[in-house]
Amino acid sequence: MNRNDYIELDDKDTLREYRDKFVTNEDTIYMDGNSLGPLPRSAVERLEKAVKIEWGRDLIQSWNTNSWIDLPTIIGEKIAPLVGAAPGQVICSDSISINLFKLLSAAIKINGNRTTILSQTDNFPTDLYMAEGLSSLLGENSCRLKLVESNEIETALDSDVSILMLTEVNFRTGERHDMKALTELAHEKGALVLWDLAHSAGAFPVALDACNVDFAVGCGYKYLNGGPVAPAFLYVATRHQDKFQQPLCGWMGHASPFDFRNRYEAAEGILQGLCGTPPILSMVALDAALDIFEALDLEAVKQKSIALSETFRRLVDSHELSGLSLLSPLDPECRGSQLAYRHPYAFPLCQALIKEGVIVDFRSPDIIRFGFTPLYMRYIDIFTAVQKLAMVINTEVYMDEEFQVKQKVT
Amino acid sequence: MNRNDYIELDDKDTLREYRDKFVTNEDTIYMDGNSLGPLPRSAVERLEKAVKIEWGRDLIQSWNTNSWIDLPTIIGEKIAPLVGAAPGQVICSDSISINLFKLLSAAIKINGNRTTILSQTDNFPTDLYMAEGLSSLLGENSCRLKLVESNEIETALDSDVSILMLTEVNFRTGERHDMKALTELAHEKGALVLWDLAHSAGAFPVALDACNVDFAVGCGYKYLNGGPVAPAFLYVATRHQDKFQQPLCGWMGHASPFDFRNRYEAAEGILQGLCGTPPILSMVALDAALDIFEALDLEAVKQKSIALSETFRRLVDSHELSGLSLLSPLDPECRGSQLAYRHPYAFPLCQALIKEGVIVDFRSPDIIRFGFTPLYMRYIDIFTAVQKLAMVINTEVYMDEEFQVKQKVT
Repeated sequence: MNRNDYIELDDKDTLREYRDKFVTNEDTIYMDGNSLGPLPRSAVERLEKAVKIEWGRDLIQSWNTNSWIDLPTIIGEKIAPLVGAAPGQVICSDSISINLFKLLSAAIKINGNRTTILSQTDNFPTDLYMAEGLSSLLGENSCRLKLVESNEIETALDSDVSILMLTEVNFRTGERHDMKALTELAHEKGALVLWDLAHSAGAFPVALDACNVDFAVGCGYKYLNGGPVAPAFLYVATRHQDKFQQPLCGWMGHASPFDFRNRYEAAEGILQGLCGTPPILSMVALDAALDIFEALDLEAVKQKSIALSETFRRLVDSHELSGLSLLSPLDPECRGSQLAYRHPYAFPLCQALIKEGVIVDFRSPDIIRFGFTPLYMRYIDIFTAVQKLAMVINTEVYMDEEFQVKQKVT
Repeated sequence: MNRNDYIELDDKDTLREYRDKFVTNEDTIYMDGNSLGPLPRSAVERLEKAVKIEWGRDLIQSWNTNSWIDLPTIIGEKIAPLVGAAPGQVICSDSISINLFKLLSAAIKINGNRTTILSQTDNFPTDLYMAEGLSSLLGENSCRLKLVESNEIETALDSDVSILMLTEVNFRTGERHDMKALTELAHEKGALVLWDLAHSAGAFPVALDACNVDFAVGCGYKYLNGGPVAPAFLYVATRHQDKFQQPLCGWMGHASPFDFRNRYEAAEGILQGLCGTPPILSMVALDAALDIFEALDLEAVKQKSIALSETFRRLVDSHELSGLSLLSPLDPECRGSQLAYRHPYAFPLCQALIKEGVIVDFRSPDIIRFGFTPLYMRYIDIFTAVQKLAMVINTEVYMDEEFQVKQKVT
């Protein structure tokens, strides 16, 4: 296949019109949408309105007239169908970290005398830290975090496991858990399940209700393109909402916040998942970004992601690039919308690729992540990215000093 | 004094040039800056850059090149001098509610076997709810919330009080506590002190270090004009930072977040107060808004606030308005930058005033709040606002049905 064949694939792509919904730069191939989605044109307009009209002109009245007070619910209900949740179970609020704390605390209380939070050694660090924080606050006798490897989860699900906390797609390797099987397994063993959808929501169909999931959290700024750093979301299955009691019970989760009562009384349903006053500017960007998903078939997104990543993988293979080895699962069904490769010079290699206009990211110690985001990524981008990757590796340009400089954020 | 006398006062006002730094509407007198500050022109520009350049063009690289990663510290250090804090003690993060939870949890751990959080019955509700949430999580034997009236605080400071949590300026009445005296008193009784500066920061000089305060939280979107809803800040006195251990220990507070280690290790200093990834768009607006305070003398702001509110109060008195009674302290040194009045028809009266272009707010059950914000409020605004208030009360126009309609946010 040559250059024109890829352009032809783009012409036939049923999702091709979506690219125009984003601000893109023709000199850049952006393979880091799994870290920060690009700017949707709808968000530019919406933010301008939010700043100049809603804040600048309408001021405090915007809480009512521009529905600021309802944004957590409005956004939650836009996200719900993307993660397979019926209405009334998803709300937009705070960060993933904060939401994990809410859900873990609630789960430990709901699930009797069990005290263990079971997770995976290479789960995303902040997930583990929040469980550690809860454990340090409650004491090891009331709540302890147990970490095992992915293949040890089944045997580790003993009678003390209160909740199994997993991220569906591993942030480093892209490995994807079988949500349905693991949720069933945990339930059989009497544990509840909390899924982190940071690398799932917006990338492929998620079926929280159908998998009988108990709790979930997710991210607004990766595949949902909600901006730096859009608020997160949380999911509490309807069947748990009556017993749900979370300790970060700020006034936005109160049954009557504007009565300003001095005793907490939780709002009904998913609203009780809220805490403090929400960051409106960050929320409106996410709200606007989600409009892109309104009539979108996430199965089509997933299929194009597989086509893009398989094209990338095969092209890389065909170049036989020195030092580069695939870390992600070979089977596309077993991975999320990214490919991770190992390379002994991963860090400078990333920097050299970025200089070439291929934006990827490095994960310590030796991993390069390539994200596939079908809404704005073309087949020709894959072709070009691999050409540049091959050039950078084959010329060893990454050995130049300029690419060794460490930055604060990698 | 007539209309021209007020215009003359404005001409002589040393802060008059600050009004141009905000987007204002000549038809509106905005007396709700104590709830949401208006739009600074600097924030319009900064947000446009953040959206189009930092997000739209520079994307993920903005974490380094546009200093996104340092915003919590940059903003914290801009706020520090406004609240009398030496460097290294203030950081911008999350909401007031979340920050209260961090600090209360840490304080309970630091202060030995004491278990009581002492607060005031009419403290801002979310402050009380967060303490309730911590208590419900830890159990009453480990942490309990005790509420007393303002005049009972001294006697309630018994040997079980771990931390005294107060808001310096009462959100309803505007009553201002004596921070220095109460902090000293609490320390004498072996308690730590946490001040909520929601209605203080940016309104008048605060002296956290000089008052030997232990912990504080505050708000970015009221007198600091950081936008709807700017992230909050927290203060931990240097002397507590070594023993400080907060349970919402997300990856942004880790010593090496980008090493992605699976065990939490707190960053040194105030950085350990951070939790999840921060909402950048909401943060940059606050960052830009704070530039207004760079060369500003907060004592001058306070003096003009007193002059404005005293002018307002005397004008209201001179009109002898039926049903209106002052709830705030008469002595300006004993109140924040607001005046609260009671009126039996407070809610519709507020609505009628808003229709007249005087934006005030209602607090249940019968309170109208008038906020004084010297950076953009003029003496002529005070004159006009009282004229309109008198007209609305004297004509009883507020009895019209259109003003009775309750809204979600009041």
